[in-house]
Amino acid sequence: MKVFIVHAHPEPASLNGSLTEIAVSTLTEAGHEVRVSDLYAMGWKSVVDADDFGSAATHPLKIERNSARALESGQLAAEILAEQEKLRWADAVILQFPLWWFSMPAILKGWVDRVFSYGFGYGVGEHSDVKYGERYGEGTLTGKRALVSVTLGGKYSHYTDRGVNGPIDALLFPIQHGILYYPGMTILPPHVLYAANRLTPEDFSIAAKAWRERLLTLADTDPIPYRSQNGGDYEIPSLRLRAGLGSAGQSGFDLHTA
Amino acid sequence: MKVFIVHAHPEPASLNGSLTEIAVSTLTEAGHEVRVSDLYAMGWKSVVDADDFGSAATHPLKIERNSARALESGQLAAEILAEQEKLRWADAVILQFPLWWFSMPAILKGWVDRVFSYGFGYGVGEHSDVKYGERYGEGTLTGKRALVSVTLGGKYSHYTDRGVNGPIDALLFPIQHGILYYPGMTILPPHVLYAANRLTPEDFSIAAKAWRERLLTLADTDPIPYRSQNGGDYEIPSLRLRAGLGSAGQSGFDLHTA
Repeated sequence: MKVFIVHAHPEPASLNGSLTEIAVSTLTEAGHEVRVSDLYAMGWKSVVDADDFGSAATHPLKIERNSARALESGQLAAEILAEQEKLRWADAVILQFPLWWFSMPAILKGWVDRVFSYGFGYGVGEHSDVKYGERYGEGTLTGKRALVSVTLGGKYSHYTDRGVNGPIDALLFPIQHGILYYPGMTILPPHVLYAANRLTPEDFSIAAKAWRERLLTLADTDPIPYRSQNGGDYEIPSLRLRAGLGSAGQSGFDLHTA
Repeated sequence: MKVFIVHAHPEPASLNGSLTEIAVSTLTEAGHEVRVSDLYAMGWKSVVDADDFGSAATHPLKIERNSARALESGQLAAEILAEQEKLRWADAVILQFPLWWFSMPAILKGWVDRVFSYGFGYGVGEHSDVKYGERYGEGTLTGKRALVSVTLGGKYSHYTDRGVNGPIDALLFPIQHGILYYPGMTILPPHVLYAANRLTPEDFSIAAKAWRERLLTLADTDPIPYRSQNGGDYEIPSLRLRAGLGSAGQSGFDLHTA
Protein backbone atom coordinates (compact mmCIF):
# COMPACT_ATOMS: atom_id res chain seq x y z
CA MET A 1 0.00 0.00 0.00
CA LYS A 2 0.94 3.62 -0.42
CA VAL A 3 0.45 5.40 2.89
CA PHE A 4 0.41 9.17 3.36
CA ILE A 5 0.86 10.46 6.91
CA VAL A 6 -0.05 14.04 7.78
CA HIS A 7 1.68 14.91 11.04
CA ALA A 8 0.82 17.95 13.15
CA HIS A 9 2.97 18.57 16.23
CA PRO A 10 5.65 21.23 16.79
CA GLU A 11 8.02 18.97 18.75
CA PRO A 12 9.68 15.96 17.05
CA ALA A 13 10.62 14.55 20.49
CA SER A 14 6.96 14.29 21.51
CA LEU A 15 4.53 11.42 21.83
CA ASN A 16 3.04 12.36 18.46
CA GLY A 17 6.54 12.44 17.01
CA SER A 18 7.16 8.92 18.33
CA LEU A 19 3.87 7.63 16.96
CA THR A 20 4.70 8.94 13.49
CA GLU A 21 8.20 7.44 13.69
CA ILE A 22 6.67 4.11 14.65
CA ALA A 23 4.24 4.38 11.76
CA VAL A 24 6.99 5.08 9.24
CA SER A 25 9.23 2.25 10.42
CA THR A 26 6.43 -0.29 10.91
CA LEU A 27 4.84 0.34 7.53
CA THR A 28 8.17 0.51 5.67
CA GLU A 29 9.37 -2.73 7.22
CA ALA A 30 6.09 -4.36 6.18
CA GLY A 31 6.80 -3.40 2.56
CA HIS A 32 4.54 -0.38 2.23
CA GLU A 33 5.56 2.92 0.66
CA VAL A 34 5.25 5.86 3.04
CA ARG A 35 5.24 9.62 2.57
CA VAL A 36 4.97 12.11 5.44
CA SER A 37 3.88 15.72 5.49
CA ASP A 38 5.29 17.06 8.76
CA LEU A 39 3.36 20.33 8.77
CA TYR A 40 5.41 22.19 11.37
CA ALA A 41 8.70 21.10 9.79
CA MET A 42 7.37 22.26 6.39
CA GLY A 43 6.40 25.65 7.83
CA TRP A 44 2.90 25.02 6.46
CA LYS A 45 0.89 28.24 6.03
CA SER A 46 -2.40 27.73 7.87
CA VAL A 47 -4.51 30.49 6.45
CA VAL A 48 -6.56 30.60 3.26
CA ASP A 49 -5.85 33.89 1.51
CA ALA A 50 -5.40 35.44 -1.93
CA ASP A 51 -1.86 34.01 -2.25
CA ASP A 52 -3.39 30.54 -2.60
CA PHE A 53 -5.08 31.37 -5.88
CA GLY A 54 -2.40 33.12 -7.97
CA SER A 55 -3.87 35.34 -10.67
CA ALA A 56 -7.26 33.64 -10.16
CA ALA A 57 -7.65 35.74 -7.00
CA THR A 58 -10.15 38.56 -7.49
CA HIS A 59 -10.73 41.80 -5.57
CA PRO A 60 -12.74 41.38 -3.47
CA LEU A 61 -11.60 37.83 -2.83
CA LYS A 62 -14.29 35.18 -3.51
CA ILE A 63 -12.89 32.06 -1.93
CA GLU A 64 -15.11 29.42 -3.53
CA ARG A 65 -15.05 30.96 -6.99
CA ASN A 66 -11.33 31.87 -6.96
CA SER A 67 -10.41 28.46 -5.61
CA ALA A 68 -12.39 26.74 -8.39
CA ARG A 69 -10.77 28.82 -11.11
CA ALA A 70 -7.28 28.44 -9.64
CA LEU A 71 -7.63 24.63 -9.69
CA GLU A 72 -8.97 24.57 -13.28
CA SER A 73 -6.23 26.85 -14.55
CA GLY A 74 -3.38 25.25 -12.61
CA GLN A 75 -2.81 28.34 -10.51
CA LEU A 76 -3.32 26.94 -7.04
CA ALA A 77 -0.23 27.48 -4.87
CA ALA A 78 2.41 24.83 -5.57
CA GLU A 79 2.38 23.61 -1.95
CA ILE A 80 -1.38 22.95 -2.20
CA LEU A 81 -0.99 21.06 -5.48
CA ALA A 82 1.81 19.00 -3.91
CA GLU A 83 -0.48 17.91 -1.06
CA GLN A 84 -3.31 17.11 -3.47
CA GLU A 85 -0.88 14.97 -5.46
CA LYS A 86 0.10 13.05 -2.29
CA LEU A 87 -3.56 12.42 -1.55
CA ARG A 88 -4.16 11.17 -5.12
CA TRP A 89 -1.07 8.94 -4.81
CA ALA A 90 -2.09 7.36 -1.50
CA ASP A 91 -4.11 4.21 -0.84
CA ALA A 92 -4.39 5.19 2.82
CA VAL A 93 -4.12 8.46 4.70
CA ILE A 94 -3.25 8.80 8.39
CA LEU A 95 -3.80 12.03 10.30
CA GLN A 96 -1.58 12.09 13.41
CA PHE A 97 -2.28 14.89 15.87
CA PRO A 98 -2.97 15.85 19.48
CA LEU A 99 -6.61 16.74 20.14
CA TRP A 100 -6.47 20.42 21.08
CA TRP A 101 -9.76 21.94 22.20
CA PHE A 102 -11.65 18.89 20.94
CA SER A 103 -10.42 19.37 17.38
CA MET A 104 -7.31 19.54 15.22
CA PRO A 105 -4.38 21.87 15.90
CA ALA A 106 -4.78 24.98 13.73
CA ILE A 107 -1.94 23.96 11.41
CA LEU A 108 -3.78 20.78 10.46
CA LYS A 109 -7.10 22.57 10.09
CA GLY A 110 -5.26 24.95 7.78
CA TRP A 111 -4.02 21.99 5.76
CA VAL A 112 -7.64 20.90 5.29
CA ASP A 113 -8.92 24.42 4.60
CA ARG A 114 -6.33 24.95 1.85
CA VAL A 115 -5.79 21.47 0.34
CA PHE A 116 -9.44 20.36 0.19
CA SER A 117 -10.13 23.14 -2.28
CA TYR A 118 -13.20 23.65 -4.48
CA GLY A 119 -13.28 21.06 -7.25
CA PHE A 120 -10.98 18.77 -5.28
CA GLY A 121 -12.32 18.38 -1.74
CA TYR A 122 -15.76 19.87 -2.31
CA GLY A 123 -17.80 21.27 -5.19
CA VAL A 124 -17.37 17.98 -7.06
CA GLY A 125 -20.23 16.76 -9.31
CA GLU A 126 -23.59 18.25 -10.20
CA HIS A 127 -25.21 20.57 -7.65
CA SER A 128 -28.89 21.01 -8.46
CA ASP A 129 -32.32 20.17 -7.10
CA VAL A 130 -31.88 16.52 -8.12
CA LYS A 131 -28.31 16.05 -6.94
CA TYR A 132 -26.14 17.83 -4.38
CA GLY A 133 -22.65 16.86 -5.44
CA GLU A 134 -20.53 13.76 -5.30
CA ARG A 135 -19.73 13.65 -1.63
CA TYR A 136 -20.16 11.50 1.47
CA GLY A 137 -19.14 8.22 -0.07
CA GLU A 138 -17.97 9.43 -3.48
CA GLY A 139 -15.66 12.18 -4.68
CA THR A 140 -12.05 12.79 -5.59
CA LEU A 141 -10.67 10.48 -2.89
CA THR A 142 -13.08 7.55 -3.31
CA GLY A 143 -11.72 4.21 -2.17
CA LYS A 144 -8.80 5.52 -0.14
CA ARG A 145 -8.71 4.53 3.53
CA ALA A 146 -8.41 7.17 6.24
CA LEU A 147 -7.32 6.72 9.84
CA VAL A 148 -7.37 9.38 12.54
CA SER A 149 -4.68 8.79 15.18
CA VAL A 150 -5.14 11.15 18.06
CA THR A 151 -3.60 11.71 21.48
CA LEU A 152 -5.46 13.55 24.21
CA GLY A 153 -4.93 14.69 27.75
CA GLY A 154 -8.18 13.66 29.44
CA LYS A 155 -9.14 10.29 30.82
CA TYR A 156 -11.07 7.60 28.97
CA SER A 157 -14.18 7.96 31.14
CA HIS A 158 -14.45 11.68 30.27
CA TYR A 159 -15.00 10.70 26.63
CA THR A 160 -17.47 7.82 27.10
CA ASP A 161 -21.19 7.82 26.30
CA ARG A 162 -22.00 9.88 29.42
CA GLY A 163 -18.60 11.56 29.89
CA VAL A 164 -18.48 15.32 30.42
CA ASN A 165 -16.55 16.06 27.19
CA GLY A 166 -18.99 14.14 25.02
CA PRO A 167 -18.34 10.75 23.39
CA ILE A 168 -15.10 10.60 21.43
CA ASP A 169 -16.88 9.26 18.33
CA ALA A 170 -19.17 12.28 18.31
CA LEU A 171 -16.26 14.68 18.85
CA LEU A 172 -14.45 13.13 15.89
CA PHE A 173 -17.54 13.04 13.63
CA PRO A 174 -16.92 16.50 12.13
CA ILE A 175 -13.42 15.32 11.18
CA GLN A 176 -14.09 11.73 10.17
CA HIS A 177 -17.45 12.24 8.44
CA GLY A 178 -17.35 15.97 7.67
CA ILE A 179 -13.79 16.17 6.32
CA LEU A 180 -12.54 12.70 5.38
CA TYR A 181 -15.69 10.85 4.30
CA TYR A 182 -16.96 13.95 2.46
CA PRO A 183 -14.53 13.64 -0.49
CA GLY A 184 -15.07 9.89 -0.62
CA MET A 185 -12.59 8.26 1.71
CA THR A 186 -13.40 5.09 3.64
CA ILE A 187 -13.03 5.79 7.36
CA LEU A 188 -11.46 3.34 9.78
CA PRO A 189 -12.26 3.46 13.50
CA PRO A 190 -9.99 6.06 15.13
CA HIS A 191 -6.90 5.21 17.13
CA VAL A 192 -7.18 7.17 20.38
CA LEU A 193 -4.56 7.42 23.11
CA TYR A 194 -6.03 8.81 26.37
CA ALA A 195 -4.26 10.50 29.29
CA ALA A 196 -1.40 10.95 26.88
CA ASN A 197 0.58 13.40 29.02
CA ARG A 198 0.80 10.96 31.90
CA LEU A 199 2.25 7.90 30.16
CA THR A 200 4.83 5.87 32.03
CA PRO A 201 7.49 4.06 29.97
CA GLU A 202 5.45 0.89 30.43
CA ASP A 203 2.28 2.64 29.24
CA PHE A 204 4.20 3.86 26.21
CA SER A 205 5.44 0.41 25.38
CA ILE A 206 1.87 -0.95 25.50
CA ALA A 207 0.65 1.99 23.42
CA ALA A 208 3.40 1.47 20.84
CA LYS A 209 2.47 -2.20 20.49
CA ALA A 210 -1.23 -1.38 20.01
CA TRP A 211 -0.32 1.25 17.42
CA ARG A 212 1.85 -1.22 15.44
CA GLU A 213 -1.04 -3.67 15.40
CA ARG A 214 -3.40 -1.03 14.04
CA LEU A 215 -0.87 -0.10 11.35
CA LEU A 216 -0.41 -3.69 10.23
CA THR A 217 -4.15 -4.17 9.84
CA LEU A 218 -4.69 -0.94 7.90
CA ALA A 219 -5.77 -2.82 4.78
CA ASP A 220 -8.14 -5.23 6.56
CA THR A 221 -9.84 -3.24 9.33
CA ASP A 222 -13.58 -2.90 8.84
CA PRO A 223 -14.50 0.73 8.21
CA ILE A 224 -17.18 2.78 9.95
CA PRO A 225 -20.33 2.12 7.87
CA TYR A 226 -21.27 5.74 7.19
CA ARG A 227 -24.27 6.05 4.89
CA SER A 228 -23.64 7.19 1.34
CA GLN A 229 -25.39 10.45 0.42
CA ASN A 230 -26.44 9.33 -3.04
CA GLY A 231 -27.13 5.67 -2.30
CA GLY A 232 -30.84 6.09 -1.57
CA ASP A 233 -30.84 6.63 2.20
CA TYR A 234 -31.39 10.39 1.95
CA GLU A 235 -34.30 12.36 0.50
CA ILE A 236 -33.32 14.69 -2.32
CA PRO A 237 -33.06 17.69 -2.29
CA SER A 238 -33.51 17.98 1.50
CA LEU A 239 -30.70 15.48 2.20
CA ARG A 240 -32.53 14.32 5.29
CA LEU A 241 -32.31 10.66 6.24
CA ARG A 242 -35.46 8.92 5.01
CA ALA A 243 -38.16 8.14 7.57
CA GLY A 244 -37.84 4.62 8.91
CA LEU A 245 -34.05 4.51 8.59
CA GLY A 246 -31.93 4.54 11.74
CA SER A 247 -32.63 2.32 14.71
CA ALA A 248 -34.67 3.30 17.75
CA GLY A 249 -32.54 5.35 20.11
CA GLN A 250 -30.29 6.64 17.32
CA SER A 251 -30.21 10.40 16.95
CA GLY A 252 -27.84 13.14 15.88
CA PHE A 253 -24.61 11.95 14.32
CA ASP A 254 -25.39 8.29 15.05
CA LEU A 255 -28.14 8.25 12.41
CA HIS A 256 -25.52 8.53 9.68
CA THR A 257 -23.92 5.20 10.52
CA ALA A 258 -25.85 2.26 9.04
CA MET B 1 -21.85 46.10 28.11
CA LYS B 2 -18.32 45.58 26.91
CA VAL B 3 -18.37 43.40 23.81
CA PHE B 4 -15.34 41.71 22.27
CA ILE B 5 -15.72 40.47 18.68
CA VAL B 6 -13.25 37.99 17.25
CA HIS B 7 -13.54 38.11 13.48
CA ALA B 8 -12.07 35.49 11.14
CA HIS B 9 -12.42 36.13 7.41
CA PRO B 10 -9.73 37.19 4.91
CA GLU B 11 -11.98 39.54 2.91
CA PRO B 12 -13.42 42.71 4.54
CA ALA B 13 -15.95 43.01 1.67
CA SER B 14 -17.49 39.64 2.52
CA LEU B 15 -20.70 38.60 4.23
CA ASN B 16 -18.73 37.99 7.44
CA GLY B 17 -17.17 41.44 7.06
CA SER B 18 -20.64 42.95 6.77
CA LEU B 19 -21.92 41.07 9.80
CA THR B 20 -19.04 42.35 11.92
CA GLU B 21 -19.59 45.91 10.65
CA ILE B 22 -23.26 45.63 11.57
CA ALA B 23 -22.32 44.32 15.01
CA VAL B 24 -19.92 47.21 15.67
CA SER B 25 -22.36 49.89 14.55
CA THR B 26 -25.43 48.35 16.18
CA LEU B 27 -23.75 47.79 19.53
CA THR B 28 -21.96 51.15 19.55
CA GLU B 29 -25.18 53.01 18.71
CA ALA B 30 -26.90 51.17 21.56
CA GLY B 31 -24.28 52.51 23.98
CA HIS B 32 -22.07 49.45 24.33
CA GLU B 33 -18.29 49.49 24.17
CA VAL B 34 -16.89 47.31 21.40
CA ARG B 35 -13.45 45.93 20.63
CA VAL B 36 -12.67 43.80 17.57
CA SER B 37 -9.83 41.40 16.88
CA ASP B 38 -9.81 41.05 13.10
CA LEU B 39 -7.46 38.09 12.94
CA TYR B 40 -6.53 38.29 9.25
CA ALA B 41 -5.96 42.05 9.46
CA MET B 42 -3.78 41.50 12.53
CA GLY B 43 -1.73 38.85 10.72
CA TRP B 44 -2.51 36.53 13.62
CA LYS B 45 -0.02 33.63 13.87
CA SER B 46 -2.06 30.42 13.97
CA VAL B 47 0.44 27.94 15.25
CA VAL B 48 1.47 27.13 18.80
CA ASP B 49 5.26 26.94 18.92
CA ALA B 50 8.26 27.80 21.13
CA ASP B 51 8.01 31.51 20.26
CA ASP B 52 4.80 31.68 22.31
CA PHE B 53 6.59 30.92 25.57
CA GLY B 54 9.66 33.18 25.56
CA SER B 55 12.44 31.86 27.78
CA ALA B 56 9.93 29.49 29.42
CA ALA B 57 10.23 27.30 26.29
CA THR B 58 12.30 24.17 26.94
CA HIS B 59 14.08 21.78 24.60
CA PRO B 60 12.29 19.57 23.87
CA LEU B 61 9.20 21.76 23.92
CA LYS B 62 6.59 20.72 26.52
CA ILE B 63 3.52 22.69 25.53
CA GLU B 64 1.45 22.34 28.68
CA ARG B 65 4.34 22.86 31.08
CA ASN B 66 5.99 25.69 29.11
CA SER B 67 2.67 27.43 28.63
CA ALA B 68 1.96 27.28 32.38
CA ARG B 69 5.38 28.67 33.28
CA ALA B 70 5.21 31.37 30.61
CA LEU B 71 1.89 32.63 31.99
CA GLU B 72 3.11 32.61 35.61
CA SER B 73 6.30 34.45 34.75
CA GLY B 74 4.73 36.93 32.35
CA GLN B 75 6.61 35.55 29.36
CA LEU B 76 3.70 34.58 27.13
CA ALA B 77 3.95 36.35 23.76
CA ALA B 78 2.61 39.92 23.98
CA GLU B 79 -0.06 39.25 21.34
CA ILE B 80 -1.43 36.36 23.43
CA LEU B 81 -1.50 38.47 26.60
CA ALA B 82 -3.30 41.23 24.68
CA GLU B 83 -6.07 38.80 23.64
CA GLN B 84 -6.35 37.45 27.19
CA GLU B 85 -6.71 41.02 28.42
CA LYS B 86 -9.54 41.65 25.93
CA LEU B 87 -11.30 38.51 27.16
CA ARG B 88 -10.93 39.62 30.81
CA TRP B 89 -12.25 43.07 29.85
CA ALA B 90 -15.34 41.81 28.02
CA ASP B 91 -18.82 41.13 29.36
CA ALA B 92 -19.69 39.35 26.12
CA VAL B 93 -17.65 37.68 23.40
CA ILE B 94 -18.81 37.15 19.81
CA LEU B 95 -17.01 34.78 17.46
CA GLN B 96 -17.82 35.71 13.84
CA PHE B 97 -16.68 33.19 11.21
CA PRO B 98 -17.64 31.10 8.20
CA LEU B 99 -18.04 27.40 8.99
CA TRP B 100 -15.25 25.75 7.00
CA TRP B 101 -15.25 21.95 7.07
CA PHE B 102 -17.74 21.95 9.92
CA SER B 103 -15.44 23.93 12.20
CA MET B 104 -13.58 27.22 12.56
CA PRO B 105 -11.18 28.57 9.95
CA ALA B 106 -7.62 27.66 10.97
CA ILE B 107 -6.78 31.23 11.97
CA LEU B 108 -9.54 31.23 14.58
CA LYS B 109 -8.62 27.76 15.83
CA GLY B 110 -5.11 29.11 16.19
CA TRP B 111 -6.44 31.99 18.25
CA VAL B 112 -8.04 29.46 20.61
CA ASP B 113 -5.01 27.15 20.67
CA ARG B 114 -2.71 30.04 21.64
CA VAL B 115 -4.89 32.37 23.74
CA PHE B 116 -6.65 29.71 25.86
CA SER B 117 -3.31 28.78 27.38
CA TYR B 118 -2.63 26.62 30.44
CA GLY B 119 -3.65 28.44 33.60
CA PHE B 120 -5.95 30.74 31.63
CA GLY B 121 -8.20 28.64 29.38
CA TYR B 122 -7.48 25.25 30.95
CA GLY B 123 -5.48 23.84 33.83
CA VAL B 124 -7.37 26.10 36.24
CA GLY B 125 -8.10 24.84 39.77
CA GLU B 126 -7.22 21.62 41.56
CA HIS B 127 -6.77 18.50 39.44
CA SER B 128 -6.92 15.42 41.62
CA ASP B 129 -9.08 12.37 42.29
CA VAL B 130 -11.66 14.52 44.08
CA LYS B 131 -11.73 17.43 41.63
CA TYR B 132 -10.82 17.78 37.97
CA GLY B 133 -10.33 21.49 37.59
CA GLU B 134 -12.56 24.53 37.48
CA ARG B 135 -14.10 24.11 34.07
CA TYR B 136 -17.45 23.64 32.35
CA GLY B 137 -19.34 26.31 34.19
CA GLU B 138 -16.49 27.91 36.16
CA GLY B 139 -13.04 29.17 35.26
CA THR B 140 -11.22 32.31 34.22
CA LEU B 141 -14.09 33.59 32.07
CA THR B 142 -17.01 32.84 34.41
CA GLY B 143 -20.07 34.97 33.87
CA LYS B 144 -19.14 36.34 30.46
CA ARG B 145 -21.62 35.67 27.67
CA ALA B 146 -20.48 34.02 24.43
CA LEU B 147 -22.22 34.02 21.06
CA VAL B 148 -21.15 32.07 18.00
CA SER B 149 -22.20 33.80 14.76
CA VAL B 150 -21.56 31.57 11.81
CA THR B 151 -22.25 31.61 8.09
CA LEU B 152 -22.33 28.41 6.06
CA GLY B 153 -22.79 27.30 2.50
CA GLY B 154 -25.23 24.42 2.85
CA LYS B 155 -28.98 24.52 3.19
CA TYR B 156 -30.91 24.51 6.43
CA SER B 157 -32.35 21.01 5.90
CA HIS B 158 -28.83 19.54 5.58
CA TYR B 159 -28.18 20.60 9.20
CA THR B 160 -31.45 19.50 10.81
CA ASP B 161 -31.99 16.53 13.14
CA ARG B 162 -31.81 14.03 10.25
CA GLY B 163 -29.75 16.14 7.82
CA VAL B 164 -26.72 14.57 6.14
CA ASN B 165 -24.18 16.92 7.76
CA GLY B 166 -25.46 16.27 11.27
CA PRO B 167 -27.48 18.71 13.40
CA ILE B 168 -25.94 22.18 13.63
CA ASP B 169 -26.14 22.13 17.43
CA ALA B 170 -24.07 18.95 17.55
CA LEU B 171 -21.55 20.32 15.05
CA LEU B 172 -21.13 23.42 17.20
CA PHE B 173 -20.93 21.49 20.50
CA PRO B 174 -17.13 21.11 20.40
CA ILE B 175 -16.87 24.90 20.00
CA GLN B 176 -19.68 26.07 22.26
CA HIS B 177 -19.27 23.52 25.04
CA GLY B 178 -15.70 22.35 24.49
CA ILE B 179 -14.05 25.74 23.97
CA LEU B 180 -16.33 28.52 25.27
CA TYR B 181 -18.20 26.88 28.16
CA TYR B 182 -15.01 25.11 29.31
CA PRO B 183 -13.37 28.25 30.81
CA GLY B 184 -16.68 29.32 32.31
CA MET B 185 -18.52 31.42 29.76
CA THR B 186 -22.31 31.38 29.49
CA ILE B 187 -23.28 30.26 26.00
CA LEU B 188 -26.11 31.84 24.01
CA PRO B 189 -27.86 29.95 21.23
CA PRO B 190 -25.81 30.35 18.04
CA HIS B 191 -26.69 32.73 15.24
CA VAL B 192 -26.53 30.70 12.03
CA LEU B 193 -26.90 32.00 8.48
CA TYR B 194 -27.52 29.17 5.99
CA ALA B 195 -26.95 29.09 2.22
CA ALA B 196 -24.78 32.13 2.82
CA ASN B 197 -23.16 32.19 -0.61
CA ARG B 198 -26.50 32.45 -2.40
CA LEU B 199 -28.01 35.47 -0.61
CA THR B 200 -29.99 37.94 -2.72
CA PRO B 201 -29.98 41.59 -1.63
CA GLU B 202 -33.40 40.95 -0.11
CA ASP B 203 -32.12 37.88 1.77
CA PHE B 204 -29.25 39.98 3.07
CA SER B 205 -31.54 42.70 4.28
CA ILE B 206 -33.63 40.13 6.20
CA ALA B 207 -30.45 38.57 7.59
CA ALA B 208 -29.08 41.95 8.67
CA LYS B 209 -32.31 42.72 10.53
CA ALA B 210 -32.29 39.36 12.32
CA TRP B 211 -28.65 39.90 13.27
CA ARG B 212 -29.36 43.35 14.72
CA GLU B 213 -32.15 41.87 16.82
CA ARG B 214 -29.81 39.19 18.19
CA LEU B 215 -27.23 41.85 19.03
CA LEU B 216 -29.70 44.04 20.87
CA THR B 217 -30.84 41.12 23.03
CA LEU B 218 -27.32 39.97 23.89
CA ALA B 219 -27.80 40.76 27.58
CA ASP B 220 -31.23 39.12 27.89
CA THR B 221 -31.17 36.02 25.71
CA ASP B 222 -31.56 32.81 27.68
CA PRO B 223 -28.37 30.76 27.51
CA ILE B 224 -28.03 27.09 26.61
CA PRO B 225 -28.43 25.30 29.98
CA TYR B 226 -25.24 23.23 29.85
CA ARG B 227 -24.66 21.25 33.02
CA SER B 228 -21.94 22.43 35.36
CA GLN B 229 -19.13 19.90 35.90
CA ASN B 230 -18.80 20.52 39.61
CA GLY B 231 -22.45 21.15 40.45
CA GLY B 232 -23.33 17.58 41.37
CA ASP B 233 -24.54 16.18 38.05
CA TYR B 234 -21.33 14.28 37.32
CA GLU B 235 -19.68 11.42 39.22
CA ILE B 236 -16.18 12.22 40.43
CA PRO B 237 -13.54 11.21 39.36
CA SER B 238 -15.10 9.52 36.29
CA LEU B 239 -16.88 12.74 35.22
CA ARG B 240 -19.71 10.67 33.83
CA LEU B 241 -23.23 12.03 34.06
CA ARG B 242 -24.94 10.41 37.03
CA ALA B 243 -27.41 7.60 36.35
CA GLY B 244 -30.97 8.88 36.17
CA LEU B 245 -30.00 12.28 34.77
CA GLY B 246 -30.88 13.12 31.18
CA SER B 247 -34.29 12.49 29.70
CA ALA B 248 -35.27 9.38 27.76
CA GLY B 249 -34.08 9.67 24.19
CA GLN B 250 -31.18 11.95 25.12
CA SER B 251 -27.75 10.62 24.23
CA GLY B 252 -24.33 11.89 23.21
CA PHE B 253 -23.88 15.65 23.43
CA ASP B 254 -27.55 16.21 24.31
CA LEU B 255 -27.05 14.69 27.76
CA HIS B 256 -24.96 17.69 28.79
CA THR B 257 -27.83 20.13 28.41
CA ALA B 258 -30.17 20.10 31.42
